[in-house]
Amino acid sequence: MPALDVCFSPDLLPLYDLRGRVAVIVDVLRASTTIVTALVAGVTHVFPVGSLEECAALGAQGCLTAAERDGVPAEGFDLGNSPFGFLDPARPVRGRALAISTTNGTQALRRSLAAEAVVIGGFVNLTAVANFAQQQQRDVLVVCAGWKGQFCLEDSLFGGALAARLGPLGFDVAHSDSTLAALHMWHQAGDDLPGYLLQSAAVRRLNALEANDDFLFCAKVDTYANALPLLKDDRLVLV
Amino acid sequence: MPALDVCFSPDLLPLYDLRGRVAVIVDVLRASTTIVTALVAGVTHVFPVGSLEECAALGAQGCLTAAERDGVPAEGFDLGNSPFGFLDPARPVRGRALAISTTNGTQALRRSLAAEAVVIGGFVNLTAVANFAQQQQRDVLVVCAGWKGQFCLEDSLFGGALAARLGPLGFDVAHSDSTLAALHMWHQAGDDLPGYLLQSAAVRRLNALEANDDFLFCAKVDTYANALPLLKDDRLVLV
Repeated sequence: MPALDVCFSPDLLPLYDLRGRVAVIVDVLRASTTIVTALVAGVTHVFPVGSLEECAALGAQGCLTAAERDGVPAEGFDLGNSPFGFLDPARPVRGRALAISTTNGTQALRRSLAAEAVVIGGFVNLTAVANFAQQQQRDVLVVCAGWKGQFCLEDSLFGGALAARLGPLGFDVAHSDSTLAALHMWHQAGDDLPGYLLQSAAVRRLNALEANDDFLFCAKVDTYANALPLLKDDRLVLV
Repeated sequence: MPALDVCFSPDLLPLYDLRGRVAVIVDVLRASTTIVTALVAGVTHVFPVGSLEECAALGAQGCLTAAERDGVPAEGFDLGNSPFGFLDPARPVRGRALAISTTNGTQALRRSLAAEAVVIGGFVNLTAVANFAQQQQRDVLVVCAGWKGQFCLEDSLFGGALAARLGPLGFDVAHSDSTLAALHMWHQAGDDLPGYLLQSAAVRRLNALEANDDFLFCAKVDTYANALPLLKDDRLVLV
């Protein structure tokens, strides 16, 4: 029976053996949501890069660039870390490649490369992630991007949401206390995910940045229920 | 306004600045509970030591010794990690010093020495910890011992229980998502803490070791409501 585990912080990744597992990289607010949205909007592939310098270098080679640090767009790039940047008719993105660098999400991804498969998950594509896991029948590790190493509520809740989907499909979701805690929180949030998240530190940061629309978009389940970004070599593509 | 924060794993301690804070070391199952119980039972002071060798060396100098690895008593020591070891009339402990080394608890303590004050907390002495925090009026960090670096449910729930006590006393308990999550879980557990914990990995380990009585003892609130072990130099003493 494959197991689902939830890693609450990239700083705890050394405790896990990623080999043979599916790693689901989760940065609900906002890198995961933005990457899914960009690919659905027609971006051909996404390079998740660690540094702003790499991002700029890919821009010089013709990529669209998106970069964020501490929640605000980094200077000198085409876009920040808002999914709405890819939904603006005035700025068509179809057919372009994208290089993206964010505070937490891209860093979590780059620390998970030992996994058998690396995919991007958020509430926006929960069903796509669940379907992929079911099809793979491998152990799954949800890698919460967190905030600079700290636990964050929204990424952990996604772990609970995925556990709630995969438990009835035969995955062991009682294997670790982090998964149990995530499941408890998900059941507690019930039908009001935005309400549950309103207190969270990231939401307060976003609201302070007047990005409340981003928050609501990121907290909605299955807007892109079939979109699964999968890492192939150095780039994310839709499966 | 002083703040309460919850660190879910000793491996996340590098993210926190402990200076000026009260560190509450929490290993509910079972080191915290056992240390409190030992001191209440008349042990004069407790040396929390990292290695079995140090523990044995203190034993050779006349200390009682207690040591556990992976949930079972380590060989060659007077006691294991069960609080009942200190409540056995056939083995009086009054007036003795104790050296203790456990898988997670003593290690968490030794990584928290930069704090202004280091105390031991468990459900067994929740009120004593809350009273001390209120009196100190300093920021508090709950250091969950976890299990070999992993998140564990019972220590995190203690963080929620302490937040529920200190919030109404003017502490900021909405400062971090880990505190919010711990509070949510505590409220969810409600009046049935043992029931909520029954699924947890540590409880399953204890039950497999036929230590169910230990579990129930450790999950009971305020059995020793006035007992607070405080670190003075190299030893824990009752305040």
